[in-house]
Amino acid sequence: MKKGINHYQVGEQVETYLLIKTAKKGIASNGKPFLTLQLTDKTGEIEAKLWGISPEDETTFQGGTVIHTQGDVQDFRGMRQLKIKAIRPSSSMDQVKPEDFLPTAPRGREEMLEEVTQYIFDMQNAKIQRITRHLFKKHQQAFSVSPAATKNHHEFVSGLAYHVVSMLQLAKSIAGLYPSLDTDLLYAGVILHDMAKVRELSGPMATQYTTEGKLIGHITIMVTEIEEAAKELGIEGEEVLMLQHLVLSHHSKGEWGSPKPPMIREAEMLHMIDNIDAKMNMMDRALDRVLPGEFSERVFALENRSFYKPSFHEKPIDL
Amino acid sequence: MKKGINHYQVGEQVETYLLIKTAKKGIASNGKPFLTLQLTDKTGEIEAKLWGISPEDETTFQGGTVIHTQGDVQDFRGMRQLKIKAIRPSSSMDQVKPEDFLPTAPRGREEMLEEVTQYIFDMQNAKIQRITRHLFKKHQQAFSVSPAATKNHHEFVSGLAYHVVSMLQLAKSIAGLYPSLDTDLLYAGVILHDMAKVRELSGPMATQYTTEGKLIGHITIMVTEIEEAAKELGIEGEEVLMLQHLVLSHHSKGEWGSPKPPMIREAEMLHMIDNIDAKMNMMDRALDRVLPGEFSERVFALENRSFYKPSFHEKPIDL
Amino acid sequence: MKKGINHYQVGEQVETYLLIKTAKKGIASNGKPFLTLQLTDKTGEIEAKLWGISPEDETTFQGGTVIHTQGDVQDFRGMRQLKIKAIRPSSSMDQVKPEDFLPTAPRGREEMLEEVTQYIFDMQNAKIQRITRHLFKKHQQAFSVSPAATKNHHEFVSGLAYHVVSMLQLAKSIAGLYPSLDTDLLYAGVILHDMAKVRELSGPMATQYTTEGKLIGHITIMVTEIEEAAKELGIEGEEVLMLQHLVLSHHSKGEWGSPKPPMIREAEMLHMIDNIDAKMNMMDRALDRVLPGEFSERVFALENRSFYKPSFHEKPIDL
Amino acid sequence: MKKGINHYQVGEQVETYLLIKTAKKGIASNGKPFLTLQLTDKTGEIEAKLWGISPEDETTFQGGTVIHTQGDVQDFRGMRQLKIKAIRPSSSMDQVKPEDFLPTAPRGREEMLEEVTQYIFDMQNAKIQRITRHLFKKHQQAFSVSPAATKNHHEFVSGLAYHVVSMLQLAKSIAGLYPSLDTDLLYAGVILHDMAKVRELSGPMATQYTTEGKLIGHITIMVTEIEEAAKELGIEGEEVLMLQHLVLSHHSKGEWGSPKPPMIREAEMLHMIDNIDAKMNMMDRALDRVLPGEFSERVFALENRSFYKPSFHEKPIDL
Amino acid sequence: MKKGINHYQVGEQVETYLLIKTAKKGIASNGKPFLTLQLTDKTGEIEAKLWGISPEDETTFQGGTVIHTQGDVQDFRGMRQLKIKAIRPSSSMDQVKPEDFLPTAPRGREEMLEEVTQYIFDMQNAKIQRITRHLFKKHQQAFSVSPAATKNHHEFVSGLAYHVVSMLQLAKSIAGLYPSLDTDLLYAGVILHDMAKVRELSGPMATQYTTEGKLIGHITIMVTEIEEAAKELGIEGEEVLMLQHLVLSHHSKGEWGSPKPPMIREAEMLHMIDNIDAKMNMMDRALDRVLPGEFSERVFALENRSFYKPSFHEKPIDL
Amino acid sequence: MKKGINHYQVGEQVETYLLIKTAKKGIASNGKPFLTLQLTDKTGEIEAKLWGISPEDETTFQGGTVIHTQGDVQDFRGMRQLKIKAIRPSSSMDQVKPEDFLPTAPRGREEMLEEVTQYIFDMQNAKIQRITRHLFKKHQQAFSVSPAATKNHHEFVSGLAYHVVSMLQLAKSIAGLYPSLDTDLLYAGVILHDMAKVRELSGPMATQYTTEGKLIGHITIMVTEIEEAAKELGIEGEEVLMLQHLVLSHHSKGEWGSPKPPMIREAEMLHMIDNIDAKMNMMDRALDRVLPGEFSERVFALENRSFYKPSFHEKPIDL
Repeated sequence: MKKGINHYQVGEQVETYLLIKTAKKGIASNGKPFLTLQLTDKTGEIEAKLWGISPEDETTFQGGTVIHTQGDVQDFRGMRQLKIKAIRPSSSMDQVKPEDFLPTAPRGREEMLEEVTQYIFDMQNAKIQRITRHLFKKHQQAFSVSPAATKNHHEFVSGLAYHVVSMLQLAKSIAGLYPSLDTDLLYAGVILHDMAKVRELSGPMATQYTTEGKLIGHITIMVTEIEEAAKELGIEGEEVLMLQHLVLSHHSKGEWGSPKPPMIREAEMLHMIDNIDAKMNMMDRALDRVLPGEFSERVFALENRSFYKPSFHEKPIDL
Repeated sequence: MKKGINHYQVGEQVETYLLIKTAKKGIASNGKPFLTLQLTDKTGEIEAKLWGISPEDETTFQGGTVIHTQGDVQDFRGMRQLKIKAIRPSSSMDQVKPEDFLPTAPRGREEMLEEVTQYIFDMQNAKIQRITRHLFKKHQQAFSVSPAATKNHHEFVSGLAYHVVSMLQLAKSIAGLYPSLDTDLLYAGVILHDMAKVRELSGPMATQYTTEGKLIGHITIMVTEIEEAAKELGIEGEEVLMLQHLVLSHHSKGEWGSPKPPMIREAEMLHMIDNIDAKMNMMDRALDRVLPGEFSERVFALENRSFYKPSFHEKPIDL
Repeated sequence: MKKGINHYQVGEQVETYLLIKTAKKGIASNGKPFLTLQLTDKTGEIEAKLWGISPEDETTFQGGTVIHTQGDVQDFRGMRQLKIKAIRPSSSMDQVKPEDFLPTAPRGREEMLEEVTQYIFDMQNAKIQRITRHLFKKHQQAFSVSPAATKNHHEFVSGLAYHVVSMLQLAKSIAGLYPSLDTDLLYAGVILHDMAKVRELSGPMATQYTTEGKLIGHITIMVTEIEEAAKELGIEGEEVLMLQHLVLSHHSKGEWGSPKPPMIREAEMLHMIDNIDAKMNMMDRALDRVLPGEFSERVFALENRSFYKPSFHEKPIDL
Repeated sequence: MKKGINHYQVGEQVETYLLIKTAKKGIASNGKPFLTLQLTDKTGEIEAKLWGISPEDETTFQGGTVIHTQGDVQDFRGMRQLKIKAIRPSSSMDQVKPEDFLPTAPRGREEMLEEVTQYIFDMQNAKIQRITRHLFKKHQQAFSVSPAATKNHHEFVSGLAYHVVSMLQLAKSIAGLYPSLDTDLLYAGVILHDMAKVRELSGPMATQYTTEGKLIGHITIMVTEIEEAAKELGIEGEEVLMLQHLVLSHHSKGEWGSPKPPMIREAEMLHMIDNIDAKMNMMDRALDRVLPGEFSERVFALENRSFYKPSFHEKPIDL
Repeated sequence: MKKGINHYQVGEQVETYLLIKTAKKGIASNGKPFLTLQLTDKTGEIEAKLWGISPEDETTFQGGTVIHTQGDVQDFRGMRQLKIKAIRPSSSMDQVKPEDFLPTAPRGREEMLEEVTQYIFDMQNAKIQRITRHLFKKHQQAFSVSPAATKNHHEFVSGLAYHVVSMLQLAKSIAGLYPSLDTDLLYAGVILHDMAKVRELSGPMATQYTTEGKLIGHITIMVTEIEEAAKELGIEGEEVLMLQHLVLSHHSKGEWGSPKPPMIREAEMLHMIDNIDAKMNMMDRALDRVLPGEFSERVFALENRSFYKPSFHEKPIDL
Repeated sequence: MKKGINHYQVGEQVETYLLIKTAKKGIASNGKPFLTLQLTDKTGEIEAKLWGISPEDETTFQGGTVIHTQGDVQDFRGMRQLKIKAIRPSSSMDQVKPEDFLPTAPRGREEMLEEVTQYIFDMQNAKIQRITRHLFKKHQQAFSVSPAATKNHHEFVSGLAYHVVSMLQLAKSIAGLYPSLDTDLLYAGVILHDMAKVRELSGPMATQYTTEGKLIGHITIMVTEIEEAAKELGIEGEEVLMLQHLVLSHHSKGEWGSPKPPMIREAEMLHMIDNIDAKMNMMDRALDRVLPGEFSERVFALENRSFYKPSFHEKPIDL
């Protein structure tokens, strides 16, 4: 099998199918139009320029199109860039589908949904369990394919589910060490905290913020949904308030989007677990293409740090 | 008529009825118990110490009790303090009620409710009007007596209604100068922005934060109520989202409690109008007891500034 | 009448006269010189590139020249850009003057000067009135044409006067609601606060900061001028100090250029009124070209926010 | 068995032995000397005032003395305070030792040392293993009794060892979920990160900062010790640098004491694990004495937050 | 000769004359009035409490009175405090004057004025020289006795002159190493930078901020005076602007009171020289009473740091 | 002799030898490769583009090559840029060496080493002297050629030595004015503070950060070296700790890389002296090419300020 686009080094030659994620027109300094293409397959992305395009090219090479291309990987200001030598849109003969080129979570959709279901099943507190199950059922379909973000971490098909399942495992193993934690609250917090991303974001393909995502945000949307779910299910009691507080405070600080800081143990832990999973995801990805003894590209969402791979660590298999 | 407690200067003698707002027990350096009393009438507050108390005193002089006292106003670290020379609880003979001693808005409850009603009546957009009216009717009773805060500004009986009515007048006169403002959105924003203070705070007497006030806060509570109101009234459309955004963003910044900054014109204006009315209220109060040519006490909520009264300004009538 | 440059959408064709505001030479990647032109008419600005220029072109197409051009409006990284297809300098035959292309306040110069004069005339305190009138007379001419800034808000011919007159109206309507405000101080503060922009900036055409503008700034310059005016008029008393304090503190915080924060009521209000008028100006302009249901460009001076026009608002007439 | 001092509520009577942790002399407002005693047993601390003391009292009631006392638990500004009614120093007849009153980790010293030894034993990389074992052996004795801090968290006998062992368990369970983590580096980082607290702090009794603790700090001291250990053991290679970086960066930010931020995966994880264990320790302690439905005291090191115990949680056994 | 109050250690007995700097009345917990006295001599200050005072005591022991007292130096929360055993006001028999007890610069007034004069005399640029001399002559009298501040550093009689002369010497020796510095500008900047402290502060005795000091501040006052001086002397040219900029920018940042940062070399150097002299003054004073091997009290104006005296440094002579 | 590259103005023609410092390949908008050359001689640097290069060009024009070139100095976004009209690599015939083109300290290597040696020789405290001499001898060779940084200030051959010698002179002249300073500590601090730059940076040619420079940094490296030196020389005593503290704290704040702030007088002074020398170096360089009456380019490391050269200052000789 061919290696993915993420594993090509500067200097290598590429001949492969790729999906155009976005295509943006610009005017070159010689006055001629060109396209900046963001090309992707399951392993990652690369930028390419298509110079001196015709009006037809503009129509042909749009976001969502799978192309076949030949070219060289070059360095442009510290980022890899594909210098295109040949390009054509794929046809039915090529037997390729856009879906096959979107980066996707490493675990299956159904398997992940089942795992979440099991955590809900194990809850002791019936109120917490019923509200969580109700909202999970309601959004299950979108939840199973949604990315967790538009960039930074888990921004791939099913990224949200993958993030949640990883956090549930973390929650379980940490709660085993700190018995004062209420696992019902903690698991429910993990499952619901980002659930409203399915309304904040436009879906797995060409992901964007929706209007309500921009003006209200996933945190407040989910607090509202918990209220409605409780009303609908006829559930009263402080459990409702606690679930709302868990979601509300999971960004930890006002300047990060939480109007209240965590004020129960499980809320503080939820924030820390979220952090661990997001940061591991970002660091792993940054170090994925790096050779032992080298530094990674800078990671904007990690205070623009560059990470080092110790020289006594092993070389990744596919490099 | 007697002058209020707020208008006594250091050095003056006091003989009057006052309401005990709070009474807190402490242990003096000689090992004897004492009470720190927060005494109030409609014009303001003064602190007093009751030294060497007996267990009966402790029962007698509790929050909510009206007392009759004689004493001297003294200076304690730049704050006025009442040195009590005689104190007794009021009896039915005295014909005084606690309600008569709570600082209250300078305008009548009914009059203010009517004024708000008129603003709602004048709205053009039926969706905005119906949601606003629905929520106003729902909370009208509590709204008409609630303070706007526990301290800093408008922290008196009907303070919330007074703050809202002042802001409506400001909104009207400013909107007259900037025709691009949608007055329906602006008025609705003013009326709803702090409405959930009736759930965040425990009411006009001995005001405290409720549990849901602490863990969720009035902003998120009202966003949730708008959602429910729209559902109940069968209203759909972007108006609902705009009303939620107005409430959500009215503290302007994440670190001040708004998870989203204002992103529509009326939201930005709502924040500025809120600011003007709160600041004028705080400055007026700070300068109320200050003579021309002098500086006020420091005002914590105004960056701890001290305000100056120009020497060519007039002396207040009752000083 | 033709529509202004500000109202052309991406994709439209333009054929019109425009003023070259600035022309900057660069070297293209093919080694040939080009000009980046900032083109303007009364409604707004647009950038254009003139590729492959000759030395004569460089002389012909300079700032201050009115040109006639044909071209297409295109999108360049989210900003509109004019792709020039034909361009020539205007001649006397064209009967166009540079002045006619500068964006200008929507109200007449004389009318605004008269309105300011009326506010001064109405002042009660003779000292405040005389100093204000003296400085107003002194700078009247430059004041009537000066922009209020080089960018962000009111950066057009007579922008300063327009900003001041709007603020006076705001001050009047707000002072009507808060009787504790001294309108003499407030109006004087409004009139003088930015008056030294006439020394800080180089004038209405190709506006730049002067050396004293950079090294001292309009705030300190005006404080100094108030001192001199008082000396010249033989005026003593705290009024002089108050006027200086109003100007000194109107940016509110040290990091925004005010060495002292507002310490009198009118100074705090002056700052808030300044804010309202500047922000309304910026938001109105950002939303001017936006269709209902869309977001504006980001506004740097408003914390880089993008503003939304609700979909139930009307489409602007000229779009 | 008697209940510990931490479990007495305001209003209860106490008759028990307690250790004087610190005794501080003051002058009361009546001019007489008094002592502020910090009294402790294994469960926690309480403050008490000893009024009108004689010179002998001053000599008798010093830090390190076990006393027998009778008194009432009262509230002083939201903190519990012991009002002493009778007090005497213990004598040999009482059969009490100061050591028995110091709060101590809930696990045995030897058991914890063994657990750390096992983690070292399991390391794969010989260089990392040898340096870690060398430093662990060197400081083992002091390490086994040292507190982890003077206040905030794990500030009890063997607090350092307890903190490290908890973190090792956390590290193990998290590393099981993220296979990219190098457990040798992570465990070594956990074991060494606070090891130099044995030089930064003065020991388990009346813990203070040493001069080198103040001027250099435990982070830099340990980096220096790793260098020396490597020299002494004749070890070269990047492992030495990585261990130094792990220790150096474990406070994560310059303003928190780390001159370099984490730049390897294990360093970032070390910081997060440290955080989890410290925060859980602080929250558990704050919520220990709180009844369901109530808020805890404010915790300074957790941004001064107060934590809530949901009303559906169980009452602690000993309350 | 007797040792000064600054050199008494906790535990020592005092019998001496001292000046009451300030006397503040309070109410003790037993309900009786007391005075908090700030007592001073040339070497420093000490606080004392006078318990159970009579109305006559209140009149007798006021600021500005020299008293004779006996007492013990005690420790109160880490600060020295004088426990008064006997106190009486001085009479004419005692032959003591208040002036003799005010801390004063270590150099003579006349000598310092002469030194400043010499620096002015040596200036090459006639415009800079004339303006500097004019303003120096104008304020010479007040300048020669003014403190440089109300607290933190150089807050003693002639503190301003002493600070300026030290800075001139620093300026001279540094300018010798960096020939690009214009010594005329630098010296003039040093002489004028704090000159308006004579208007900002109320003078050497019981120093307070004046109203113009609070509302405008010494920086802006001096910029205004330079303008007037230039007008009066008929001087034009950029030298005037440079002198104004030097004064205006000498606090370096907006949040420290300078509306513009230093933009000429000499302004940046002026700020750094000001810093060096102020910090050396504060550190020397903090370490003055400290024994080798000990830490000083915390110095608020130096980020609340505590300073260490190395144990191999010598003990001060008078300790 | 020819004038250096730093002294050419926009518009001038250049014909000279220059060293290629770095050469970076890019792809132009016409799809052709080009090189961005950083060209340097002893006086400064200039950027140039080499368009449309061949593979041979790429090999020929690499970092470290001396070239002969002809071209025009042009303005590119406010920076000077060389438009190359002719270029060829130098041959042995040209008799030029790369070393001759590197900017170098204005003083000789040997002379500076001797001066440092003299300061060490003059020390009184034998322990301080021996440690300082030991480390100076150890690194003398690298120290004598190392730059002090990769950019901002003293980033030239022998920049470190030049910076240290200037600081020693400053230290000497300032210590003459403040007798409380311990010159042994101060001089030792100056000599050692940046000594580990020889390990943090890769050397004078194409200077980069080393791995240990990035992960540990020069401050911690030198603290470690002082420890080892003391061990090796058998020196004990607080002097070792003080030298470590001086180095550790010389960046003054955590966010600037010092885990502890200065806590001894000499450490605070070391930080201020370091600042003065670095800032003078940066300002002198920025103003070097500026005409009287003009502003310099912005200096990033000086808060992005632009500096002004007063119009009454003289024009530099070579402009």
